[in-house]
Parts: sequence; structure tokens; C-alpha cells
Amino acid sequence: MNITGEALIGGIAERGSAGSFQAWDPNLQQHIAPAFNMVDRDQIDRACRLAGEAFDIFRATSDAERAHFLETVAEQILAIGDELIVRAMAESGLPRMRLEGERGRTVGQLRLFAELLREGSWRDVRIDTALPERTPPRPDLRMQMTGLGPVAVFAASNFPLAFSVAGGDTASAFAAGCPVVLKAHSAHPGTSELVARAVVRAVEQCGLPAGVFALLTGTGNGIGQALVAHPAIQAVGFTGSRSGGTALMAVAAARPQPIPVYAEMSSINPLILMPQALAARADEIGKGFAASLVLGVGQFCTNPGLVLAIDGPGLDTFCEAASRALLDTQAATMLTQGIAQSYRKGVELLRGHHAVTTLACLEHVEGKGAAALFRTSAEHFLAHHELHGEVFGPSSVVVACRDLAELRAVTEVLEGQLTATLQIDEGDYEAARALLPVLERKVGRILANGFPTGVEVSTAMVHGGPFPATADGRSTSVGTGAINRFLRPVCYQNLPQALLPEALRDHNPLGIWRRRDGALTKE
Amino acid sequence: MNITGEALIGGIAERGSAGSFQAWDPNLQQHIAPAFNMVDRDQIDRACRLAGEAFDIFRATSDAERAHFLETVAEQILAIGDELIVRAMAESGLPRMRLEGERGRTVGQLRLFAELLREGSWRDVRIDTALPERTPPRPDLRMQMTGLGPVAVFAASNFPLAFSVAGGDTASAFAAGCPVVLKAHSAHPGTSELVARAVVRAVEQCGLPAGVFALLTGTGNGIGQALVAHPAIQAVGFTGSRSGGTALMAVAAARPQPIPVYAEMSSINPLILMPQALAARADEIGKGFAASLVLGVGQFCTNPGLVLAIDGPGLDTFCEAASRALLDTQAATMLTQGIAQSYRKGVELLRGHHAVTTLACLEHVEGKGAAALFRTSAEHFLAHHELHGEVFGPSSVVVACRDLAELRAVTEVLEGQLTATLQIDEGDYEAARALLPVLERKVGRILANGFPTGVEVSTAMVHGGPFPATADGRSTSVGTGAINRFLRPVCYQNLPQALLPEALRDHNPLGIWRRRDGALTKE
Repeated sequence: MNITGEALIGGIAERGSAGSFQAWDPNLQQHIAPAFNMVDRDQIDRACRLAGEAFDIFRATSDAERAHFLETVAEQILAIGDELIVRAMAESGLPRMRLEGERGRTVGQLRLFAELLREGSWRDVRIDTALPERTPPRPDLRMQMTGLGPVAVFAASNFPLAFSVAGGDTASAFAAGCPVVLKAHSAHPGTSELVARAVVRAVEQCGLPAGVFALLTGTGNGIGQALVAHPAIQAVGFTGSRSGGTALMAVAAARPQPIPVYAEMSSINPLILMPQALAARADEIGKGFAASLVLGVGQFCTNPGLVLAIDGPGLDTFCEAASRALLDTQAATMLTQGIAQSYRKGVELLRGHHAVTTLACLEHVEGKGAAALFRTSAEHFLAHHELHGEVFGPSSVVVACRDLAELRAVTEVLEGQLTATLQIDEGDYEAARALLPVLERKVGRILANGFPTGVEVSTAMVHGGPFPATADGRSTSVGTGAINRFLRPVCYQNLPQALLPEALRDHNPLGIWRRRDGALTKE
Repeated sequence: MNITGEALIGGIAERGSAGSFQAWDPNLQQHIAPAFNMVDRDQIDRACRLAGEAFDIFRATSDAERAHFLETVAEQILAIGDELIVRAMAESGLPRMRLEGERGRTVGQLRLFAELLREGSWRDVRIDTALPERTPPRPDLRMQMTGLGPVAVFAASNFPLAFSVAGGDTASAFAAGCPVVLKAHSAHPGTSELVARAVVRAVEQCGLPAGVFALLTGTGNGIGQALVAHPAIQAVGFTGSRSGGTALMAVAAARPQPIPVYAEMSSINPLILMPQALAARADEIGKGFAASLVLGVGQFCTNPGLVLAIDGPGLDTFCEAASRALLDTQAATMLTQGIAQSYRKGVELLRGHHAVTTLACLEHVEGKGAAALFRTSAEHFLAHHELHGEVFGPSSVVVACRDLAELRAVTEVLEGQLTATLQIDEGDYEAARALLPVLERKVGRILANGFPTGVEVSTAMVHGGPFPATADGRSTSVGTGAINRFLRPVCYQNLPQALLPEALRDHNPLGIWRRRDGALTKE
């Protein structure tokens, strides 16, 4: 398939008129052909207007039709073949196996949402039957969830497939019946174009309006800001930096009609080593932690950037084991030059910080991420807010606490996080029980005896968390719960059967679970 | 019971130090004793901190315990006896029957949320069982919804009981396990104090931490802004004006940690008269509309402030019938002087507008709301945005359209609304079908052949809608769905049974519906 460097608007490839840029191969440290043309204001406006016009038709499709569409997108992605993997490798520096796995996840997500649509309870159907004899009479009330409207999706740098053009945000928005205007990530425009062409083919094949999907290509913040400000856009999905996410939140809040932003931004994912676990398995935990820290060159939102434990020989053993394991790793290519530069800056800040000891730090290699491990005391951590920020990459800070009370005090000052992980043995349960309420307030997912990297795409997954982990802690961006981000309830009062949406009709034509007078039933 | 004019913080009555004010009797046009002391910054801070400290304990209560608490609040409200009704009548000018009905609704809401807690599926429990044989193995994942944290609730002027101290926002926040810091409405501080003392008694009786509830009393915007800006507050419930709601949205968005605001603000609730219905029942619909318009002196958020129809003899008959019925009504006391003044201003703007014809307008009486009906063309309505705003009170604008296409064009330019009502006969179904997608995008509740005033408190109700009807169209503030506003998901990965929340344990100790590997079950 040819990568032409064009945007895709209304199903048609067209050249942007606002300059051009090229992709960058972080391994070879060189630009990759072709040039990508950047979209202008008029093109952004057109893509959004077409999405707005397509919305009513798209959300009027049956769940079965949208399920088929999602499956067709999955098939079309697979049909690109190895070209997709090769291009993604070149643009991201990620290895083949990782990208093949990520393609599998991407296709799996699309199919999971198709299943969800066929199951039907995502609509949260509620029917309160009329009580004509009551004083006052109760009308017939029927409620279901419906799509919010066109969604602006921003592709992630660190998941060129699973959180980009046809990734989790797009899949859940499509499932909800929402058209997607996609802003490609400038780090992998070729990968984006390949997948976007697959989506466009699926749109055509399923006979959907072309406005259901558009690909906008470009660099800088201008396109994103214009996109979020566009009146047709009704929600935003974003995965990226805290500064990028909060900038979009500000644009969304300042609109004449404010809209929800689901930005997944920043998390240091505390790993908490409880005393008994540390006494029993410090060495093993240290090795496991190091492996989790360097996975994907630390470029996961769930990377364990903070370790909390009570000071003592167990913690020393952990630190030694982790340091040894990290010093055995190699600096590896990071996704972009910008990410590599930010990472180096973050590591240098820690290395030069008077309150921080360097436990392990691989030698810096330009464009690469070299593992680093630091140590400080709880007292210093509490006093220095600059130690709380995310350093995106394979770097982590161990915070030694005097006792459980101080450890709890540290968790209390943490900002919102995607995850927190407890290393616990049975003797730690009581102490863990005291800590859990704090963690429940602070994070979206609490793990025991594992490591936070590795996010299952399933029904119960929560990949979310209070600000700044995400813009909106009421949501998850991974798993079937992600569809809820793009839904709102609509109630019908005394509407004749002939005018009711199918899911709300008397004889339950879709055969789905519904809440009838408060009770769940398929009748 | 004595009304002392004090705030209630940490379960203790204390005097505010920031000046004082008195309630106003809108019927007698005079102040009512006693003086109410306004809270200062320190008191606001203390109430919020206590709410923050109470949160973990409160949300750790069992659903049965919180259900009992809600029922105790209901009992304690009833135990106030007639004094509550008498005080509310004096402060609001509303008649006894309305307030007795509203008390019934308030108590009913609290009991409905108690039922919801006992039923248990509000937690949306999801369990994905471990798949240790899979490559990679799937961990055990369990998810449930949990409370967001302390909620700042702003009492509504137009529902001194059902949307004030122990009204819908408070009931749903309590049900979610969230402490409430309540800003009393300055129009009914005595009513607020009586109910707040009932809530405090229930808190004591149920052995809950005193920080679970606080009453803050005062006038002006300062208290509300300090409250929403306080770091302990995690969500806001508000019912009131568009300017008030958007001001709080701005404060919430500007916080270091932005928080959700659920503001129910502004709606003109279009009533759409379809051709066949108009041909068959213009006179009857006109009378019904007039009755809905003047109900509660038009001081309902669901008041029908806009009528859309195709021009012709049917519409003329409707206008005549409605005008006759309105001219038969009497100007009646409005809730506050401010509301009466705003209403008069709104009516004068319409009466003096060059593009508007006055169909009926009762003579103005100071402090009262006199019914008014106006008429304009779709062309004028589309050209004059100032005709789209809410005039809070018994005033409405009839917009005559050339044809269905123009009627649809008018609905397309409307802002978000709480409701839209279709008057339809069978011959109108096809035309209605073309209109429904627009209405579904614009409103939270679509009614057929009724009037929008009258909001059932039930499972399927949606009292919400896109901005500016509410700040967040993904929610309802009435009915059991209101609990979702104050919840967020938390996932537990591989947590030992002993540390899991009860609702997530293997043997389903609460006996509730849970989603297990994607399928609903009570097993």
C-alpha cells in the first residue's frame, strides 16, 4: 500500500496546505519518506462538519451493524499485512514482537467492543411502566444511553496501534455510535495513514457515511486546539503529556458549550513494599520491579516510577537486587527525540538533586533511554514536590519511610495515579487494610503482588484514575467500560411504541438485559 | 424547634462571623426573624476538612447502613412536623399543598436511594476471573464503583425541600458514600436550618462521623466559590441560574485538580405541536399548555418556554385557547424579589421586541409573576438569539414555522434542553420520526402528548440534558441514575479475598447482580 502523506477527509485523501513534515526513524536517526502535508483550518472544519452530519445516521445503525463495522476495521487492519509492522517499527523504534502483539491487541479491542454491542447491556436500558391508577399517575418512562456526538481522538506516541488511529478511544467511540476525527501523532504519520486507510475502507464496505471517520495530519498544537474548539466536536479522547492534556482541557472548558475531555496524562504508579513481603522476597521483588521498569524502555503510562517501603535491611536488599538488574540492561531507543530529551532532563534533575542518592544509572546514549534508580527519604520526598513528577522512561525513585505511618503520609500527598501496587504477604494484610482506603481515593487500579505494566483489555479493567492520571477520574480508557465515556442518557415519556428506539420496545426485540421497574430482566 | 440562624459544622451549631441577613416573606413583603449569621472562610475550610476526614469512614459503611441512614434522615424530616411546612411557606411563598407534596417527594427520594443501595447493582460490579493458562496469563480483575469524595451541594431556590438541604443531590451523594457540605439558599435559610438539624440528628443517631454533613449559611457568591475551590471537595451539585452555574464551572476547572460540576441551569423546554395533533386538538392542547405554563408560577426548570408549530388555523386556535386560559389566571407571588425582577425584565424584553407579537400579558404586580404569551415567526426566531434565552416564570414564546423543514431548522439551533415535548397523533408519526434524532441530540427527556412539568422520581427518569440545560449532559439529577454522578470505578488486580471489598468477594456475600466474565449473574 502506498503511503502518500495525505489527510483523509470525507473518505477522500487530500493534501494539507499548511506545510509539511517527515517522520523520523529513531533507530537510524534519520527522516523517512514521504513528506506529510499538514491540514489547514478549513480542512479541520470540514472534517468536523462531516462528522457532525454523519452522527445521526451512524448512531441510528443497529448494534449488530456497528459490531460488524468494528470487525471489518479489524479485518482491514490485518489485511495491511507486514507493511504495517515494518512502518511502525521504523517510526517508533519499537521491536517487531511488541508491535505484532500491539496489533493483536488493537484487533482484539475492536472485536471486544463488537461483542459488547451484541450483548446490549451497555445501553443501560431502564423501563418504568405507567401507573395510571396512582395519584398523580406515573407516566411510562424508558431510558437508554446514546452517543455524545463526534469525538476528537488524539493518537498516543507510545501505542502507535493500540492507542492511535483505530485504538481504544476510537473503538469505544465507534461502539457508542460516535464519529471520530482523529489527530495522528506526528511521530508515526505513516503508520497512522495505513491504519486510517483501513478504517476508511471499512466505512465504505459497511455503507456508512464517509464523515464517520477522518484523519488529520500535522505537527504542533494548532490542529488539536482548533479540533477541540470546533462546535461539532462533543468529546475528546487524548493520551499524552500532562501539559498537552491540560491545554486541551482548558480549550474544552472555554468553549461556548464546554465538552468532556478524557485525557490520560501522567502517573508514577507507586509500588509499595510491605514489611513481611520485603522480609521474605526482597531480592525477587527487586528483579521483578527492574524488569517492569525497563519494559518498553519505561514508556508505559503504568511504569513504576515510585517505590515506597520502610527503611531497613529488606529495602537495602531490594535496592541492590533492582540496581544489579538495571545495570545489566542496555540503554534502548526511545520513541521520539523529544521523549528521549525529556527523559534525560528528568534523570539529570534527580541525579543532581541534593536530597536524592543515585543507586543505579546507566550511561547516557543520545536518543536512548538508560535505566536509572534513585533513593530518598520520606522526609525529603514530602518536602520536595519536584520529586513527585513523572519521568517518562525507565527511571524510578525509592522512598525510604521510617514506619507505616510515614508511608501512609507519603501516599496521602500523592496526586491521582493510574495504579498502585502492593507487595504483600499474609502478615501484611492488616497494614495493607489500613492503606487501602487511601489508595482507593488516589488510584484507578490496585494490584497485589504483581507489577503495574501490562494492562488487560477486559470488562473489569480500569485504566483511569483521579487527576492528573486522567482528566476525568470517573472513567477508564481501556476495557469495555471505556464506552461509557461517550454516552449520555435519553429518556422517553409516553412515547408510542412505533416511535421508540428498538431497545426500549415492549417485547424486548433485541433480547437484552433491561431494568424494568427497578429489576433486571430479559422479559 | 428553634431556628437560631447558625451554621452546622461538625455536628455543632455555630455562629458565622461574616455578617448577617434575614429571610424574606415574599407574600407579606417583609423580613422574617431571626437573623442568620454568614459563615467565614475559616468555617468553610473547617466544614470541608471535616468532610474530607469523614469520607473514608462514611464510604466504608455497608450499603445497608447507608440505606438506614437515608431512611433516618427521612424520618427526622417528618418528625419536624408542621413547623417545616409553615416556615417553608413563609420563606418561599409557595402554598401548603405544594410544600406538603414536596416534603413527600423529598422523603420518597431518600427512601428510593435506600432501596437502590439494598439492591446493590449501582456498584456495577465486574469480575474477570484469572486465566492462568493463557499466554500471557490473565490476572484476576474485579471492579466496583466507589464514591468520588466530599460533594458541595448548592440548594435550589425553587425546591426548598426536594432540591435543597436533604434533596436529590444530597440523597444521591450520601447514597454514593460522599459527605455533603451544603450551601443553603439565602431565600430559605430557616427551612434549611430545620432540615439540616434533622440531617445532623440522623448522622448522630446512625453513629456516623459528624463531618458527613455540614450546613453553610450566607448570601452572595463568595461562600460558593470558596467551597468549590476547596481541595477536599471532589464534586459539585448545583441547581440555579446559568450565570451562577457557569461561574462555579469556571472555579472548578481552574482548580489545581479540576473537579466535575453537575449544574442544572437553564432550559426552555420546547413544546412541538405536530400538524395532525394541532388539527385535531388545538383547543385542548392550548388549555393544557397554559396550565403547565403557570404551574408553580412558572418556576420549574421544565417550564414550557417555547412552542413550535406550523403556521395556520390550528396554531391560531391553539394561541387563542392558551391566551384565554392565561388571561383567566392571576399574577402570583414568586419565590424571591430577584426572580420576580428578572421575570419582569424578561417579559418586558419580549413585549418590546420588534419581531414579537404579544398574545396575552397579565398586568404586572410587584413581586408577582403575571402570565405572558408571545408569538414570532421562525425567521425572526432564527435571526434573534435573544429570543432563545430562558425567562424563568410563566412566559412562553410561540414560534410559527412555514413548514416541517423550517420547524426542524429551529430545533437544530436550540441549545441543550432538559425536555422536548411532542404533541402528536398517528398521522404525525412519520414527521416525528424525522424530528426525533435532532431532539435526542438536544434534550434529556422526550415526551409525547403531555407537558414537561412534573418530573417523576424513578429509575428511568432523566432530568438532565446537554449544556446549558446542565453543565454535564452525561447525567441526571433526578431519579436513581443521579447516584452515578458521584461515583468512579476502582479495579483490584489479584487482591487476596481477605482484602477485597465485600461486594467483590467470590461467594457474592451481598447477593447482588454482578458481571462475571462479561455476563450478568448473581452467582
